[in-house]
Amino acid sequence: MHLKLREPLRDLAECSLPAALEAMGERWSFLILRAAFNGLHHFEEFQSELGIARNILANRLARLVEHGILMREAMHDDRRKIEYRLTEKGAALLPTMVALRQWGERWETGVAATPVLVDERDRRPIRQVEVHAWDGRVLRKGDMVWSLPEDIAGDVDAAE
Amino acid sequence: MHLKLREPLRDLAECSLPAALEAMGERWSFLILRAAFNGLHHFEEFQSELGIARNILANRLARLVEHGILMREAMHDDRRKIEYRLTEKGAALLPTMVALRQWGERWETGVAATPVLVDERDRRPIRQVEVHAWDGRVLRKGDMVWSLPEDIAGDVDAAE
Repeated sequence: MHLKLREPLRDLAECSLPAALEAMGERWSFLILRAAFNGLHHFEEFQSELGIARNILANRLARLVEHGILMREAMHDDRRKIEYRLTEKGAALLPTMVALRQWGERWETGVAATPVLVDERDRRPIRQVEVHAWDGRVLRKGDMVWSLPEDIAGDVDAAE
Repeated sequence: MHLKLREPLRDLAECSLPAALEAMGERWSFLILRAAFNGLHHFEEFQSELGIARNILANRLARLVEHGILMREAMHDDRRKIEYRLTEKGAALLPTMVALRQWGERWETGVAATPVLVDERDRRPIRQVEVHAWDGRVLRKGDMVWSLPEDIAGDVDAAE
């Protein structure tokens, strides 16, 4: 084990986070993304719901499309109408978005936001998003270490 | 059930996300936070590891302290030395940070980053961060709906 091992903090090119951050880290991009998760699809909807200037909205939508997070497509019934939908890559931001929302509820506002996210089948509130070990144990900051791939214990595939 | 229910998208004051976003959404703030999760504590460490200008670093550290994400304290053995440590609130950003890293690995770089995050006990890679229903089912975007607190099924406390 490498006790002093850590992420290459300076080498931003190798790190995958800044790309994700550029995609959703900017205030308006984030709010558009959140609106997309809430089922908004059209320029006019985003514009009126978010109260965002048209030029900023157009710019941010274009960037989210460029990043492959939203896709832009003509509607079936009226080809002049354009829809923006989350791609698979965009939809995969769900755990991040939910984790951030729960953090805000707990630490910023101190109260559960309304409305509440529930699972559709049972209509019960979702769990807190947490980090889990391969066997399901909840992990805190001190429960994790960095490891080189060659130092990983056992059969990694079997841990899936 | 309110099928058309969704978050109040426009009312930013009521929403808990922008505060979280302001705290970590800015590029340098995020990199400092990531470095703090990697065990960096001192101004000089952040400065040399991140290659960040001293005035920007001082500004961002002050903001993270102001947001209650880092705390600033004098070291026991040398009171002139200052340490920056994650508060409980800051440490609670772990699931968000890990979810974002995993998203970047999967969708931006396409490969697992090195080093790998493992649990300290078993040295096995952590699981993907996901959203779970009260009973542990993994939930995707289409599996969740918004609900008013009074419409939530059953005994909420029993679901914990």
